Amino acid sequence: MRVLLVGASGAVGGAVAEALGGRHELLRAGRSHGDHRVDLASDASVEALFAATGRVDAIVCATGGMFFGPLAAMRPADFDVGLQGKLLGQVRLALIGQHALTDGGSITLTTGIDEPILQAVNAGAVNSAVEGFVRGAAIELGRGIRINAVSPTVMTESLPTFGPFFPGFESVPAARVAQAYVRSVEGPQTGRVYRVWQ
Amino acid sequence: MRVLLVGASGAVGGAVAEALGGRHELLRAGRSHGDHRVDLASDASVEALFAATGRVDAIVCATGGMFFGPLAAMRPADFDVGLQGKLLGQVRLALIGQHALTDGGSITLTTGIDEPILQAVNAGAVNSAVEGFVRGAAIELGRGIRINAVSPTVMTESLPTFGPFFPGFESVPAARVAQAYVRSVEGPQTGRVYRVWQ
Repeated sequence: MRVLLVGASGAVGGAVAEALGGRHELLRAGRSHGDHRVDLASDASVEALFAATGRVDAIVCATGGMFFGPLAAMRPADFDVGLQGKLLGQVRLALIGQHALTDGGSITLTTGIDEPILQAVNAGAVNSAVEGFVRGAAIELGRGIRINAVSPTVMTESLPTFGPFFPGFESVPAARVAQAYVRSVEGPQTGRVYRVWQ
Repeated sequence: MRVLLVGASGAVGGAVAEALGGRHELLRAGRSHGDHRVDLASDASVEALFAATGRVDAIVCATGGMFFGPLAAMRPADFDVGLQGKLLGQVRLALIGQHALTDGGSITLTTGIDEPILQAVNAGAVNSAVEGFVRGAAIELGRGIRINAVSPTVMTESLPTFGPFFPGFESVPAARVAQAYVRSVEGPQTGRVYRVWQ
């Protein structure tokens, strides 16, 4: 398969690249790294990406910004960071990318744990929305195209940075998270959210 | 209680006004109707609303635009309609309104059924996001302030317009939907989504 991986240089994306790279033709994309440069905030940039790649059999997205901070001081513009980033960025890739997929192709997006976390109300809303999008898109996509999401908890490799936000949460190694992406790309299911939580 | 109701002239809002109006001081707000005019797309307009109302004991929102249409033709800007409308509009009201609430006050937002519906992928994502926001905000709000959402299915009164989108879904009368808002405003719970589905 030809697999487009957006966010290939990140903690999740790197593990996904390692898990998929041996068996598939991997096209790595990112804002500042990879074979292709793309800004998921721009329709034109995403259209240019698919013009450059041509047809692909799978689209995997493992990137997207969100806002973290206390609710009491949060402004609407802060909340919009995640709406324009991890949510609309991934949706843009899916909406434009659906037309570049081969019959039977797949889209795999990234969400995250939907347990309430302090200072993470933007992430909680955005992750829930990505899952809602996947459920809704799955019943409309034609030509056998599938769409799923992977919901990783905090990764063991990310504990130094994000551990303090997840008291009592068990981490999972990035290699285990990557297997959920493999399951989405190579498996038969659609409209699923693969939760990688202990 | 002093209850601010945004969207008081809508199908849901009208029923909520009828259910709450007899027992509480109701402040009706809307874009083009009501005691107060407000544009939920504007921070300044929402701030002006609360400057005009002063302290309130409950904020209820029963409004917000979304995009309906087939996924195959959907553009990122279409999807952003619901993000800026029903999602960020309600979040803006909550983020700014939290500071205008009395101790023990409440916020009640409106979501909708999270079953996948054809041509409603924007609604599905937006409704999921509103629910994620409510779950996350509930654990951060201080001073005993509560937040809930009401998730109505298609209302009997709206069947002439929306019925064709909901094949096999049983409708509920607006008066039943309104009771869920009463439960949120007058009850003790927080972080809840009250589903009004048959």
